[in-house]
Amino acid sequence: MRTINVGLFGLGVVGCGVISILRRNRGLIRARLGADLRVTHAVTANPKKKRSVALRGISVSKDPATILSNPGIDIVVELVGGTTHAKSYVLGALDAGKPVVTANKALLAEHAREIFGRVYEKELSIGFEASVAGGIPVLRSLKEGLSGDHIREIVGIVNGTSNYILSKMSAEGTPFAEVLAEAQRLGYAERDPTFDVEGHDAAHKLAILVNLAYGTTIDYSKIYKEGISRITPTDITYARQMGYVVKLLAIGKLSGQRVEARVHPTLISVDHQLAAVNGVFNAVFITGDNVDATMSYGRGAGALPTGSAVVSDIIDLARNQLAGIQQKIPALSVTKGELRNLSVVPIHELESEYYLRFQVLDRVGVLASMTKIMGNNNISIQSMVQPAQADHPEDPVQVILITHRARDRDVQKSLRQIAKLNFITGPTQLIRIESFE
Amino acid sequence: MRTINVGLFGLGVVGCGVISILRRNRGLIRARLGADLRVTHAVTANPKKKRSVALRGISVSKDPATILSNPGIDIVVELVGGTTHAKSYVLGALDAGKPVVTANKALLAEHAREIFGRVYEKELSIGFEASVAGGIPVLRSLKEGLSGDHIREIVGIVNGTSNYILSKMSAEGTPFAEVLAEAQRLGYAERDPTFDVEGHDAAHKLAILVNLAYGTTIDYSKIYKEGISRITPTDITYARQMGYVVKLLAIGKLSGQRVEARVHPTLISVDHQLAAVNGVFNAVFITGDNVDATMSYGRGAGALPTGSAVVSDIIDLARNQLAGIQQKIPALSVTKGELRNLSVVPIHELESEYYLRFQVLDRVGVLASMTKIMGNNNISIQSMVQPAQADHPEDPVQVILITHRARDRDVQKSLRQIAKLNFITGPTQLIRIESFE
Repeated sequence: MRTINVGLFGLGVVGCGVISILRRNRGLIRARLGADLRVTHAVTANPKKKRSVALRGISVSKDPATILSNPGIDIVVELVGGTTHAKSYVLGALDAGKPVVTANKALLAEHAREIFGRVYEKELSIGFEASVAGGIPVLRSLKEGLSGDHIREIVGIVNGTSNYILSKMSAEGTPFAEVLAEAQRLGYAERDPTFDVEGHDAAHKLAILVNLAYGTTIDYSKIYKEGISRITPTDITYARQMGYVVKLLAIGKLSGQRVEARVHPTLISVDHQLAAVNGVFNAVFITGDNVDATMSYGRGAGALPTGSAVVSDIIDLARNQLAGIQQKIPALSVTKGELRNLSVVPIHELESEYYLRFQVLDRVGVLASMTKIMGNNNISIQSMVQPAQADHPEDPVQVILITHRARDRDVQKSLRQIAKLNFITGPTQLIRIESFE
Repeated sequence: MRTINVGLFGLGVVGCGVISILRRNRGLIRARLGADLRVTHAVTANPKKKRSVALRGISVSKDPATILSNPGIDIVVELVGGTTHAKSYVLGALDAGKPVVTANKALLAEHAREIFGRVYEKELSIGFEASVAGGIPVLRSLKEGLSGDHIREIVGIVNGTSNYILSKMSAEGTPFAEVLAEAQRLGYAERDPTFDVEGHDAAHKLAILVNLAYGTTIDYSKIYKEGISRITPTDITYARQMGYVVKLLAIGKLSGQRVEARVHPTLISVDHQLAAVNGVFNAVFITGDNVDATMSYGRGAGALPTGSAVVSDIIDLARNQLAGIQQKIPALSVTKGELRNLSVVPIHELESEYYLRFQVLDRVGVLASMTKIMGNNNISIQSMVQPAQADHPEDPVQVILITHRARDRDVQKSLRQIAKLNFITGPTQLIRIESFE
């Protein structure tokens, strides 16, 4: 039986997960692949460190050349993370004519043009299923399952930390800071949680999804990113009363010759499939012009779920080698020469429905003043709720307006004008609504 | 640009859907495939019949040889349904060395050994994504996304008609017969609904899922099949009060050297992801040893969703041809020689929890007599509810028992013994519970 040799950069949580899966499921993989998969070389900054798996049979080194210049290595797996060393390893492997598997969402999102440019130039394969929503094979669904469909819309819950926090806030009415602290204690959130809770991680994954869905390499820095730290239990409660739940969504869709690509807290109907995705779970809802609505659900992170996606990519590339081909499906779905340049629609041009929570004094004419300003800015109101009357005339009350579809720029302008009115007692909350046309 | 020629058997709803997708999305498919896909020949029993799509450019005939003996045809698509003609077309195409796409679940389930035997013998590819859960690329997830995972369990809602009826019964408290009649009016159910509502259609799909997950060809006739026609609004209401919903589930799992493969109405926790799958939608919940829980959701039927799956398979086979290979991934996940013979666990050996609804007279000692019989048969009770007391001593009341895990044979034996007791006033209802270990 033939052996396929894998060179592994990075022996962290996922790297050790991959070694453990390949070892534990060796018989299964042999039966499916018709060959043996072995990690023969690993490169790490700290070869002496104790790992969660035994490294027997693996030659461990600090020197990237032990993999990149080794003619015996058939497939290179990059799991070091970051965008400096990782980039040189991935490009180095491609330049050496070796196919690559990576879970590195930052690298693929921020350096899409360079990495995929090289992949297309060399006509090699790159597997990156693990970079988006860990154990969920959503990239394969896009590349293969929906290969005959125009993708209308991608809406993902792709950051487990944020979803865990919002689910917990919704279930228990606890404020953001408190749930975050608990998530940090449980290991669901990093000590510096910015990357997860402010939407950067979700934006990386969105860039990859959009690039694959539309055969493009968008400018990552142009993705609108807004996190969940300003969401309050008050908003969650009022939204729920109006039939919505709050989720951090990554949204991508084609809009003429441009794409919408944005990450922000979003209200969705409590009846929508995504509303039932709770805790650390991820889900990606994709609409195609033929299949209509589809959703993939599962664990977005963890050594074994992410390791499983890496292993499935290694098997895929090994199947290429056994079939004697370099690639079967182009890396970004479209063949060489068909990649498009699509720019990202700036957020102020977005059209959406909005949840707006105002803090106002309970006086006659307040609503009229606000709606007049909004009307002047082309915003019409779908519904209004004032959950409670003030006990004392000087106590602020909450007024919630749900708008019809309006332009982001117009909404922001109205809010600036309304903020100047003398009955406004505090900052106004804005949450976009996704209505899934 | 190269052209890949497709020969199509069957010009029904799905066949016309495929023609329409290939035509409408021709530019997209060219960009993704790097070739043109054209249906050049079609075979149908009734070439003169008016279709929902124009057949310009397609040579339509009654004669299978116009496709099977045509050296210009690269890929054969079988969409006639049934297991007689369809079988000869599929085997004929394989014998002619042509790869095949089919949506024919009956054929693949009932003649698995013969069809897949021929596919493995000829080392050709067969695409059958459309045979299970229409637009949901769940077969690809099993073959590729979870290629490094042992599949622990497959639990599917794979019959849209039954799910529509149960959802409607749950939402409105309407009896089965009434909802069925409405579904027939709306075209969601056939005039003879047996195939859908008695579990045969779901069992076909289950056979295919199990065969792919475990690299086997199980005996279809051994799958336990029980439909939804005896489910009442009363059961749905009581189940709901106890935290469950009723779904027609197709369940497959490895059990030692055998497989469980069964279709029956099932109670699942209202918090489970599958509980939120309503209406005609399908979903398949799969647990792997590394990825843990995953779910794929979408439309299970319809010209375009099913057509989209057929087109994705045509594209997949076309990519093989463009790469100069006959196959990349074996038809049932495992390589030649690795197919296993797995027998199906008979239903009486099943261990499960049970919902049992008894109709009894409201007398002292009734519960003691019943639980004594159950205890003697190794069945212990998890909970008991008697929703209402009788107005008159001779009016029957309902008693619901939820059992701990018990053997099916023991439960059936207890029910036969209990049926003989003189306080039993009507037939006892039994619904299995899936607890997702």
